[in-house]
Amino acid sequence: MIVVLTPNPAVDVTYRVAEQAVGVTQRVLDVARRPGGKGVNVARVLHAAGVETTSVLPLGGTTGSWTAEALQRDGLTTTAVPVAGDTRTTVTVVDDLAHPTMYGEPGPAVTADEWAAVGVAVHGTCAAASAFVVSGSLPRGADPRVVRPWVGGAVDAGVLVVADLSGPALLEAASAGATICKPNRDELLDATGAPDERAGALDLLARGAGVVVVSAGSAGISAHTPDGVVSVAAVPDVHGNPTGAGDAATAGLVLALTAPDGRRTTGAPAPDPLGHDVLRHALRSAAAYGAAAVLRPVAGEVDRDAVDRFLTQLDRTGSST
Amino acid sequence: MIVVLTPNPAVDVTYRVAEQAVGVTQRVLDVARRPGGKGVNVARVLHAAGVETTSVLPLGGTTGSWTAEALQRDGLTTTAVPVAGDTRTTVTVVDDLAHPTMYGEPGPAVTADEWAAVGVAVHGTCAAASAFVVSGSLPRGADPRVVRPWVGGAVDAGVLVVADLSGPALLEAASAGATICKPNRDELLDATGAPDERAGALDLLARGAGVVVVSAGSAGISAHTPDGVVSVAAVPDVHGNPTGAGDAATAGLVLALTAPDGRRTTGAPAPDPLGHDVLRHALRSAAAYGAAAVLRPVAGEVDRDAVDRFLTQLDRTGSST
Repeated sequence: MIVVLTPNPAVDVTYRVAEQAVGVTQRVLDVARRPGGKGVNVARVLHAAGVETTSVLPLGGTTGSWTAEALQRDGLTTTAVPVAGDTRTTVTVVDDLAHPTMYGEPGPAVTADEWAAVGVAVHGTCAAASAFVVSGSLPRGADPRVVRPWVGGAVDAGVLVVADLSGPALLEAASAGATICKPNRDELLDATGAPDERAGALDLLARGAGVVVVSAGSAGISAHTPDGVVSVAAVPDVHGNPTGAGDAATAGLVLALTAPDGRRTTGAPAPDPLGHDVLRHALRSAAAYGAAAVLRPVAGEVDRDAVDRFLTQLDRTGSST
Repeated sequence: MIVVLTPNPAVDVTYRVAEQAVGVTQRVLDVARRPGGKGVNVARVLHAAGVETTSVLPLGGTTGSWTAEALQRDGLTTTAVPVAGDTRTTVTVVDDLAHPTMYGEPGPAVTADEWAAVGVAVHGTCAAASAFVVSGSLPRGADPRVVRPWVGGAVDAGVLVVADLSGPALLEAASAGATICKPNRDELLDATGAPDERAGALDLLARGAGVVVVSAGSAGISAHTPDGVVSVAAVPDVHGNPTGAGDAATAGLVLALTAPDGRRTTGAPAPDPLGHDVLRHALRSAAAYGAAAVLRPVAGEVDRDAVDRFLTQLDRTGSST
């Protein structure tokens, strides 16, 4: 079982309009509403791959209860931690003419006690888990140090810990000893202030991260260890919707590093140390899942046939070390 | 007591952003969320004026339960008619630079049985009422004939009926004998296809409306009867937020035509026939309330001191018949 924490879940609303424009009243032609947040997307992809997951999410207000019900309808096991604030909404406006416009609410003010309850839920579920993924933003204004006990506790429980975070929260996850920190390149440079990817990765490794996996979209994906870098090219010529591709890549990474059914293979931490061969295999899985997500119109889904096709394709092309 | 039906209530969400733009991701700096719909605004103004109201609204989903709770918190008596579809949301995006952008969801598909239940709620509440107001759009795709039993039933119950509707629903309200149809000028011309205001008003009067009150913003407000037109100029030099001014005007109109506390004055229909003197008094009240709403930043509120000031001002200036 894989535990996925989404610290700032959302109700993702998509409005289709005829033509986006500022300063006018727009008839919404079509409304789609689904539970969102990066961790939720990761959990969906893992679940679709046949792996048992438990989603831990702070949820509050009517938007929170809607999210819990919708996740249950979709068959996702959830551990909802009640919070007083309302779970946020994001609104994405689309037409056939321009790029989407996205409005992101900041998220609720979560109290220290509520964050502590999130920690208790993480620890409780990690006892039976093979991996712990924490993915997505913290609510605006949250103390990034809340990340430490989540990551530290999961490390202590002996599970693979993957942290897809940004800003100070990413630094905290590294310091707490996350097995893998997985920012995209911009997030890595932004959080560390480093001049280039390798320098940024070395910063996180020095803080305590086991491996730093850096996704760079069509420029491929790399895993940094103190010894060096393993890189895998992206699947070429994949066009579609890149939203959620990074989350599918996180799922692909975790799937490659855990038993096929998500069970713990041993009482000890999953593949440790993460050698370059293991990492190359995991990066190919990440790249294949990421590309297969681009082929699907919504985040949290992958084209299963494409995953297999892309894995074969990436096995044939090599990778540089 | 005044019954106010909002056929298509909404959760009105306002997002403040730094600068509106199409095709980008926008941080929402501030979120405001309140129950909306034209009828809700009318009920708020009546309630603030000390008149007992009952709001009848079809409500569904988590947005519907949120709306019911929020209205109760605001002290508004509600009769919620449960519907299977989700109550709609509107999102208005504001900054300090451009006009607001408003996204309006279509509203739920309400079944014939659910509309019948709305009719039952209207009839039940009108038995103890002095007036019935139906205000705002129908959900997109709703059969405009649903309006008939609401208006017809309230007329039969002997209460003052004010219909602020548009399109075919406005024509249905007229045919069902609404005491007052109150479109704005654009809505009147659009619904009737008439070349000018008087022709449009005569169309509605011929269908069965008692009086047609036409608001034209800063151009004033007029009441049409078969005998002629009474007009009152708008309060000059009022600047602010015009959203909800028409709804405040509707409240002002109803307040002038009912007992000060909203009680029924007699068993018979309130002021009937609505002579030109009575109408002139009512139009002044409508104009004062509408202008006093412009001074408030949100719909559903009026500046009480301004109402009195504007009433005095409008009494001094005359009106043309």
